[in-house]
Amino acid sequence: MIILGLDPGLATTGWGLVRAEGNRLTHVANGQLKTVSTEPLAARLSHLASQLETLIADRPADCAAVEEVFVNKNPQSTLKLGQARGVSLMIAARSGLPVAEYAARFVKKAVVGVGNADKVQVHAMVQRLLPGIAIAGADAADALAVAITHAHHLASARSGLTPKP
Amino acid sequence: MIILGLDPGLATTGWGLVRAEGNRLTHVANGQLKTVSTEPLAARLSHLASQLETLIADRPADCAAVEEVFVNKNPQSTLKLGQARGVSLMIAARSGLPVAEYAARFVKKAVVGVGNADKVQVHAMVQRLLPGIAIAGADAADALAVAITHAHHLASARSGLTPKP
Repeated sequence: MIILGLDPGLATTGWGLVRAEGNRLTHVANGQLKTVSTEPLAARLSHLASQLETLIADRPADCAAVEEVFVNKNPQSTLKLGQARGVSLMIAARSGLPVAEYAARFVKKAVVGVGNADKVQVHAMVQRLLPGIAIAGADAADALAVAITHAHHLASARSGLTPKP
Repeated sequence: MIILGLDPGLATTGWGLVRAEGNRLTHVANGQLKTVSTEPLAARLSHLASQLETLIADRPADCAAVEEVFVNKNPQSTLKLGQARGVSLMIAARSGLPVAEYAARFVKKAVVGVGNADKVQVHAMVQRLLPGIAIAGADAADALAVAITHAHHLASARSGLTPKP
């Protein structure tokens, strides 16, 4: 099973593809989709949608896993993130992928072992779990982390030990 | 020129089509798109996207006008609204419509005359500006209000008196 992890954002959306075979995880690819901050919002969202569609067409996955957005103290940031997230969820669903969502704390706990891990710790642990790979950036690392979390969750579900997200 | 006004929301997205000829406004149609709260978020957003695409295909417009979201004190509400708004802006842009955005205060000032008008006042003034029409609900009234605001703005721009949104 190939899992597409997504860490949506208006400026940068991280993505990571992981193959899960039983308890074995292998890296397929990862990257970051960008939009240009000087473009109007509707055009940026449209551009994000096209890039996601191309990604899903070029690199087929069996399912998608998306991090539940960290609700920022700044409502304008939350709104921006929400807009990019809405487009990402919608494109994944429309492309026929079942979409799982995981709270950020749950992803950090699953990957690093503690719910309040920082970005550097997540990046380091993703690098350790998928040795030798080049990670495109912090958002790609977060996307790989949510894909890994989904893989663990699926493996636990098969073994009858399903933690609650 | 036919203007599609949109008031995006996850549960209910209001829409209103208005024809602007010089300073004359006529109503074309209005309604509300719904998603089912028991469905998963990605499916709801996908369903909203399909309904918007059908609407734009069935009732062609020349441009779209979307209210800038009222940033709620509840970050979870802001996030939900952002997700629906992102999908709405994206579908409008992808359908080839130029998308204008107006702050809620600006819409209320343009339609009612005061920036802190409530929903009842907006509804009543939309009903007065477009006499005899049946308005599908509060969100459809807000969508018609933003379409009317855009019509006023375009008329002012032609006359050289453009207020800033």
